[in-house]
Amino acid sequence: MRTVLALALLAASAPLFAQDAQPPTPDSVIAAASAGEWRAIDPADLAVMTLAPDRDGKPRRIVIQLLPPPFSQGWVENIRTLARAHWWDGTSVYRVVDNWVAQWGDGEDNEAQARPLPPGMNVVAESDYVTPVQPGPEDGRDFILTPQREEIVINRWLDSYTVTAFVAGWPIGLDDSGGRTAWPVHCYGSVGVARDLSPDTGTGAELYAVIGHAPRQLDRNIAVVGRVIEGIEHLATLPRGRGDAGVYDDAALRVPILSVRLGDELAEDERPRFEYLASDSESFARYVQVRANRNDAFYRTPAGGVDLCNVQVPVRRVRG
Amino acid sequence: MRTVLALALLAASAPLFAQDAQPPTPDSVIAAASAGEWRAIDPADLAVMTLAPDRDGKPRRIVIQLLPPPFSQGWVENIRTLARAHWWDGTSVYRVVDNWVAQWGDGEDNEAQARPLPPGMNVVAESDYVTPVQPGPEDGRDFILTPQREEIVINRWLDSYTVTAFVAGWPIGLDDSGGRTAWPVHCYGSVGVARDLSPDTGTGAELYAVIGHAPRQLDRNIAVVGRVIEGIEHLATLPRGRGDAGVYDDAALRVPILSVRLGDELAEDERPRFEYLASDSESFARYVQVRANRNDAFYRTPAGGVDLCNVQVPVRRVRG
Repeated sequence: MRTVLALALLAASAPLFAQDAQPPTPDSVIAAASAGEWRAIDPADLAVMTLAPDRDGKPRRIVIQLLPPPFSQGWVENIRTLARAHWWDGTSVYRVVDNWVAQWGDGEDNEAQARPLPPGMNVVAESDYVTPVQPGPEDGRDFILTPQREEIVINRWLDSYTVTAFVAGWPIGLDDSGGRTAWPVHCYGSVGVARDLSPDTGTGAELYAVIGHAPRQLDRNIAVVGRVIEGIEHLATLPRGRGDAGVYDDAALRVPILSVRLGDELAEDERPRFEYLASDSESFARYVQVRANRNDAFYRTPAGGVDLCNVQVPVRRVRG
Repeated sequence: MRTVLALALLAASAPLFAQDAQPPTPDSVIAAASAGEWRAIDPADLAVMTLAPDRDGKPRRIVIQLLPPPFSQGWVENIRTLARAHWWDGTSVYRVVDNWVAQWGDGEDNEAQARPLPPGMNVVAESDYVTPVQPGPEDGRDFILTPQREEIVINRWLDSYTVTAFVAGWPIGLDDSGGRTAWPVHCYGSVGVARDLSPDTGTGAELYAVIGHAPRQLDRNIAVVGRVIEGIEHLATLPRGRGDAGVYDDAALRVPILSVRLGDELAEDERPRFEYLASDSESFARYVQVRANRNDAFYRTPAGGVDLCNVQVPVRRVRG
């Protein structure tokens, strides 16, 4: 009798068994994540940058997610101020360097001719490149960041630069010499604040997105303020600049920015709706594990390791 | 008297002192390298791929350096065979995926319609993804690769994937579990051999170049055969494909390849002349050190580490 039942169970679950026999892929782990493991991104934390249409008349829209507190908030506040003032409307992408960055804003070196900044801009200190970390109150093991009290999930895979972790869906670095600080890192698609030489920290009016291999040496040396979550190809495919430092040597090559709007300034039906896979979820832990040990049909030798920037936190569009 | 001499020496050497007072940059280390630290790249080891001119009529030329023995030579020989047969002339770049690869060749899935391969092509085994390493005969410390007996310079900076090194101007991975094998790694600009599922290893007719963050999980799973040393932007700026796996869904979007030629097949005055900074030179060691510890005027916090793919081996064009 038990044999028959076992056979019946086996028959009923055969498709499941067949599915389980396939080693998981990053995509299959993401697809299997439960609805409760996804967290909505507030449209107010998204900036939508619209470039002039391309030569074929196709629209170019880029969605940038801003970093949550406590990371880089002096600059993030400036970016909100600039967006609400519609300051970027009529500016341009003026610098593109292969395997490095695409940069936008006013791009005017001559201060007398530069576009005036709106009132209320913060001047941010270099000390704000990092943020304090506190030990968890219960067991002293896990770190907690204020004010969100988000759990820091330590990344157990080796990193060339420092101890790393994920918090609230973002990859971060942690001081490995007792400094008890954390900072957002530069990966493909990261958005940072262009600046002059130290101690200048930039305002947030001139921004760049990484369009190449992660320039992690910039971590703690430039403010990271967010990441492109849609449309990075509109920046990555732009012609490379031929002037000094990759600035377009002909103003006609600059790519016009029609507008930059925070998501909550857009009409309800135009608001960008996205969610990310919670970095303290079981599915995210599995996702990191699978990224580090690919053994699905295409792979022959699992790496047994993964670079922090190759663990792209899953982000997906919802409701169109 | 000594004071006067000291002062005189100081005056004479003031410019030198002033120069030394500036912390070195990767560029300054490269500029200071002696002529003897650079090694010529044989034009026969370069493949020149010419795409159709862009929409503005500008030429698009890409120079690929092929890996030296003993790495991936079964596939490299196939690439030489294909180039000498002018097999790629009239093929195209048919697949472009953001932060991943641009891929070219025949791109025909239907075997009956595929362009026939030239005679004499190798069928290469998966075991050739890696190459054996032997201990140095003198002290057993440094590894030697045959037949060149090139010194392996161990990279002392942490890597997320394995022990790493440089040999003959190339970054490589080394088995860290006693396997005594080495393999070429995937970095930005690396060229690899597209293939079907294992155990297929590809022929070398369908190739890709990395146009995003280094996909190191592909190491030992796909044959790396070389790297783009000039013109990668002509691939990185191509429109991203919208079909399955990033293949262009409209054949009209494919980018025509006019020709692929090995450097020694070109007329003397058209041959590409490049050299690389020897990875066993003092300047290269200094270069790696500086890459890992940027403290020039722009930097505030040296990283104290560097990712293997952020140590781009210096390559320069000579004689135009």
